[in-house]
Amino acid sequence: MKTHKIAVLSGDGIGPEVVFETVKILKVIEKVFDYNFAFEDALIGAIAIDETGNPLPDNTLQLCKDADAVLFGSIGDPKYDNDPNAKVRPEQGLLKLRKELGLFANIRPIKAYNSLLSRSPLKKSRIEGTDMVIFRELINGIYFGEKFTAEDFSYAYDTCSYSRADIEQIAHLAFQEATKRRKKVTLVDKANVLDTSRLWRKVTTEISKEYPDVELDFLFVDNAAMQLILNPKQFDVILTENMFGDIISDEGSVIGGSIGLLPSASIGLENALFEPIHGSYPQAKGKGIANPMASILSAAMMLRYLGLEEGAKAIEDAVENAINNLIVTSDLDETSDYSTSVVANYVIKIL
Amino acid sequence: MKTHKIAVLSGDGIGPEVVFETVKILKVIEKVFDYNFAFEDALIGAIAIDETGNPLPDNTLQLCKDADAVLFGSIGDPKYDNDPNAKVRPEQGLLKLRKELGLFANIRPIKAYNSLLSRSPLKKSRIEGTDMVIFRELINGIYFGEKFTAEDFSYAYDTCSYSRADIEQIAHLAFQEATKRRKKVTLVDKANVLDTSRLWRKVTTEISKEYPDVELDFLFVDNAAMQLILNPKQFDVILTENMFGDIISDEGSVIGGSIGLLPSASIGLENALFEPIHGSYPQAKGKGIANPMASILSAAMMLRYLGLEEGAKAIEDAVENAINNLIVTSDLDETSDYSTSVVANYVIKIL
Ligand SMILES: CC(C)[C@H](C(=O)O)[C@@H](O)C(=O)O
Ligand SMILES: CC(C)[C@H](C(=O)O)[C@@H](O)C(=O)O
Repeated sequence: MKTHKIAVLSGDGIGPEVVFETVKILKVIEKVFDYNFAFEDALIGAIAIDETGNPLPDNTLQLCKDADAVLFGSIGDPKYDNDPNAKVRPEQGLLKLRKELGLFANIRPIKAYNSLLSRSPLKKSRIEGTDMVIFRELINGIYFGEKFTAEDFSYAYDTCSYSRADIEQIAHLAFQEATKRRKKVTLVDKANVLDTSRLWRKVTTEISKEYPDVELDFLFVDNAAMQLILNPKQFDVILTENMFGDIISDEGSVIGGSIGLLPSASIGLENALFEPIHGSYPQAKGKGIANPMASILSAAMMLRYLGLEEGAKAIEDAVENAINNLIVTSDLDETSDYSTSVVANYVIKIL
Repeated sequence: MKTHKIAVLSGDGIGPEVVFETVKILKVIEKVFDYNFAFEDALIGAIAIDETGNPLPDNTLQLCKDADAVLFGSIGDPKYDNDPNAKVRPEQGLLKLRKELGLFANIRPIKAYNSLLSRSPLKKSRIEGTDMVIFRELINGIYFGEKFTAEDFSYAYDTCSYSRADIEQIAHLAFQEATKRRKKVTLVDKANVLDTSRLWRKVTTEISKEYPDVELDFLFVDNAAMQLILNPKQFDVILTENMFGDIISDEGSVIGGSIGLLPSASIGLENALFEPIHGSYPQAKGKGIANPMASILSAAMMLRYLGLEEGAKAIEDAVENAINNLIVTSDLDETSDYSTSVVANYVIKIL
């Protein structure tokens, strides 16, 4: 059996706690299914700035390039957020890593677990059966366009730019996914205002011709932000640009009752990175209350990407079992005092 | 009693239907409180393109400049949305009007009406008591920055730009409003990625010093999109840039159970415009099912702006009465078959 090299970047905040549990689980999976993983840790984010001055040290980047997959925790530290003079920021590490690895598609599945319906701020009748996946473009748009702040802070600008090729690449992935699902792609944009959005509509419409059995529809982002709450079941595959995807997918996380459940995969032509969508959540750091499920489910997405379907399925089933038995952290059940590692150990026991 | 000149721009979609009812109500208010209104109609949007080739004809703009206030319906027509080659678009009319009149602050109150709590997709316990107001910057940002599409559609870009003065102006309004309310301003931005957002944080922080009894906090827009659903009661005044405000305020409309209830005021130094936030809703056009409440409540905001507080209050009370008695359109009560004008006539009866 091939050895899969996995770069482990646990980062800041609750990242190290959830990634620690996930690696424990992967080591169990390794034995059960006779896989071979070679884990290697590296620094990124605020902790990398503290230790090296650089949010993405060269050896971290090189390790990720050489790895078969990257398992990522989270980054960010409030001490950088309100300092307009900060020259380096933790987020730059993640953004540069995404760009350097060419991770153009961020894939975020959102589903409502039956046993957690009562946890959602939304009424059960609205969300029961929700099962969508968001394809967010990840290495272009306003995140990566030219930026500028005048020295005297009299003005600033950011640029959102997209090429036809940027759009084609992720649109194909979204349509391919839709053919395996309910055959519907919804493009979320602001084509009544933005030039880039009109380019998205044009290119996506052209590409849709190659997938005649997939229906394509369009939603303005403001309307999408409403529809996601009013009627989430209408969505199958959502395709959107970087910033809209950031907003919409975090918003969509409320459907399932906790952002602590949602995994993501960031896919490029040669590399892939797997991370929970929850971010660093500094308030919870070190308290043992962080929900490890999003990270564990990200690892399942990683196994599937590596062709290790059995292991992926085993993890997903074990997580579902834990959720059904309410062996969950307090974000999902206020009466629970199960810690991060108790929950992870339960998953291990099932495996 | 002074005569107030009101420019009436009913626009496209359901705009004409809801504005028609609103003007009827204003004429009743005029008699009851002995006000003097001079209404004058003008074209804007798709209908203006159809009739004049221009989404904002010169005489419409002039009328609005000369008026004491503008009562606006909605604009937009699907036939322009998917045509990347269209040279004129209805939205350009509204955007140009906002810019020319200097309407820098779009003010969108969001509250949960007790009798409609059951209508909301959100659970009652989450939304009961929600009462916030969003201050959205309206004439800068990515809506108005330089835009470009290559002739061969190989790429496109949009620019988001803000000056210190743009931010100061609306930040002052937001802080002033907060002093009259629960004394909290939340700035929604993406300061971990965007230069313009970091400028917003810096300028807003400086201005907050002038309002020592108002608390200022910060939320990344992705997190805000979550918090708005998880815990809307935490918000008092939300301050944000143009695009984020567009998304967040439409999202927030779900709290009250229908976007058909939400009014807005767009304020400049010399002009003001009042419009429902719901947009043209072409599917409902001409069916008599459009909810007139958002437009009627926008008229109440207009009266308050004109210093006609009694009339404003009377309208708001009458609308609340109608809602409490479920004299509402079908968007608020599926069993209702009250039409747009039946609802409006009930409001008139109460007045
Ligand atoms: C940390 C931040 C830069 C990042 C983003 O906005 O992409 C995060 O919110 C995410 O969604 O992965
Ligand atoms: C019609 C459109 C241009 C407009 C906007 O995005 O500003 C609308 O959505 C609104 O919020 O008033």
